[in-house]
Amino acid sequence: MKITDIKVRSFSHMSRQNNDSDGHSHPCDPRQVRQSMLTIVTDDGTEGHCFAPSEVVRPHLINGFARDVLLGEDPYDREKLWQGLAHWQRGGNGQLSDRTLAVVELALWDLTGRKLGILVYKLIGAYRNKVLAYGSTMCGDEVFGGLSSPEDYARYAEVLVKRGYKAIKLHTWMKPVSFAPDPRMDVKACAAVRVAVGADFPLMLDAYHGYSRSKALWLGLELQKLGYTWFEEMMNEASMSSYVWLAENLTMPIIGPETADGKFHTCAEWIKSGACDITRTGVRDIGGIGPSMKIIHLAGASGMNCEVHGSGPGNLTLCAAQKNGTWVERGLLHPFIEYDEVPEYLNAQADAMDADGYVHMPQIPGLGDDINFDYIDNNLV
Amino acid sequence: MKITDIKVRSFSHMSRQNNDSDGHSHPCDPRQVRQSMLTIVTDDGTEGHCFAPSEVVRPHLINGFARDVLLGEDPYDREKLWQGLAHWQRGGNGQLSDRTLAVVELALWDLTGRKLGILVYKLIGAYRNKVLAYGSTMCGDEVFGGLSSPEDYARYAEVLVKRGYKAIKLHTWMKPVSFAPDPRMDVKACAAVRVAVGADFPLMLDAYHGYSRSKALWLGLELQKLGYTWFEEMMNEASMSSYVWLAENLTMPIIGPETADGKFHTCAEWIKSGACDITRTGVRDIGGIGPSMKIIHLAGASGMNCEVHGSGPGNLTLCAAQKNGTWVERGLLHPFIEYDEVPEYLNAQADAMDADGYVHMPQIPGLGDDINFDYIDNNLV
Repeated sequence: MKITDIKVRSFSHMSRQNNDSDGHSHPCDPRQVRQSMLTIVTDDGTEGHCFAPSEVVRPHLINGFARDVLLGEDPYDREKLWQGLAHWQRGGNGQLSDRTLAVVELALWDLTGRKLGILVYKLIGAYRNKVLAYGSTMCGDEVFGGLSSPEDYARYAEVLVKRGYKAIKLHTWMKPVSFAPDPRMDVKACAAVRVAVGADFPLMLDAYHGYSRSKALWLGLELQKLGYTWFEEMMNEASMSSYVWLAENLTMPIIGPETADGKFHTCAEWIKSGACDITRTGVRDIGGIGPSMKIIHLAGASGMNCEVHGSGPGNLTLCAAQKNGTWVERGLLHPFIEYDEVPEYLNAQADAMDADGYVHMPQIPGLGDDINFDYIDNNLV
Repeated sequence: MKITDIKVRSFSHMSRQNNDSDGHSHPCDPRQVRQSMLTIVTDDGTEGHCFAPSEVVRPHLINGFARDVLLGEDPYDREKLWQGLAHWQRGGNGQLSDRTLAVVELALWDLTGRKLGILVYKLIGAYRNKVLAYGSTMCGDEVFGGLSSPEDYARYAEVLVKRGYKAIKLHTWMKPVSFAPDPRMDVKACAAVRVAVGADFPLMLDAYHGYSRSKALWLGLELQKLGYTWFEEMMNEASMSSYVWLAENLTMPIIGPETADGKFHTCAEWIKSGACDITRTGVRDIGGIGPSMKIIHLAGASGMNCEVHGSGPGNLTLCAAQKNGTWVERGLLHPFIEYDEVPEYLNAQADAMDADGYVHMPQIPGLGDDINFDYIDNNLV
């Protein structure tokens, strides 16, 4: 079996989300947005797919790198093809990001699963068939009744508990919110949610990503008192030493790295240095499922959990294949967004959650997305 | 698909090898020996196989652990089943060794490959389709014309080079050889082989496993002068600090751990501590392909190679799936043994090597063993 083509289809669909000037998503009025799907095709007609933001699969990336490395190759040679692509990232030439790497790698997994008639998490070697979700809120805003105050977070946490969530992670206020960043506001929101959900409910905080060491420590000491489960990316991850320092000064778990460059190499340094108590990986952050499993294994070998970052079938696959992790991230959630609504380009939600807070693994061969191909072909842009 | 049965067939076959009082194999007159094959069966009739020494698949191990953990389960849930078995190793109860774990795990991989009609190294995600072999000699002996002197080793190295080998590893003299262990004899053999094969030919030494620090250092300094590629298990691996000390005192690469208990956890500590320059794993040493890939990934994340220990289709699978390793081990070899002879219970050699020193991946779905089922069924014991 040889790869004969790589196609990108861009299509429009309705969205109720928009990004602010710092890149954080918030609710908005319904609008048409553009989305892309990358498809790898083999000589026997098998196809593998992965959705992607259009900028991640721009023509110069697909024609200049992906086609050069993949065409004529066996799609089962994933390690060879991934290394072949990653090689081109050196020096940042051509902006071949880990996100583009991830889209190509996920499409290869999807193709393999579809060809063999099996779900990818079973290919890897499954650990579980359902995963407990944590509800992950959008970043705070200044919209009345949204996520504009500690009281808004507390009220919404009660809604999430009723929906079935057994854990909640707050993203608090970031720039360009007028009063952000402010660790005192973070603590007020975290405290209000703690009161709303009770003492034993698992809560996590993903705060502003650029606090100083002293602000991060102050915030962490307050979170410890509130019994939070983890403290995430509160400082620039490029400074690993800051995380080592913070971990030495807090007893509560610090999770990371998530956005730091360097893939599994960086994670190995964090583990060696004691910069984190829980590691993190996500398929979009470090170039796919294969490299993410490497991080999960790195963590397990040192007795650490690795909690997976982000939603989507690739990340859900990681969660179902790992022993050393508890949750799948579900979201981002907001009072004004109906997360359980199925997007027009899918026939079913990829991470449907039951009333007990479990996401069950889908049953479609490949990564598990039940794709509405007719919708996509009828809405090409 | 559910696992419905686990069977062990024991059969006799002709062997020309025997173990000495310390467990090292040497040539002997042809004799009938006993070998076993474990088979996992599912409700749709799919079977997965793995050969094993009979003591590794004794009835109390298979009935007491493997059947309890596996029966009724999905064979694709490898991580769950492996963790379920490994859990029972705690405290050493029942002698459930990593070797038994490995046999069960390899049979699960073989079953998956046979069910899906694909080779296991392609399931994992291949990096290469052929692997350079190193010829790995048996331990030294006291048999004239065998491996009884530095001259014997040198003469045999020339034979191996003519056969196509592009690298050779010496196992030198161990107990109960009358003059062993002796680092001066090791150096004489290593020097004679260096002269025989020339200055640039890759050579490795796997010496007596219980040298003191000072003898190990003396031997290592001599190996450095001789330009050896790696120095393997020259001290008891239970003392990681001894390896850290030796690595600080030598510039040549030290490889390990191989026989130390603790699987990937131990390997993570060796990497963190600087106890080795190259890591090592083998499917039989740490419980299968899955845990071995974890070690390969651990090593890669820290910029280290992991060279695979041992022969057989499981170890060859690791080599074909990894970027961060150079060789597959082929042997054990001895002037009096025809290694390229196909055993009676196989239809083809699993690690056939071409004249350029490459082992090519087999093309049988599963792990790649072309099993002679008729021979096995006709020679049951």
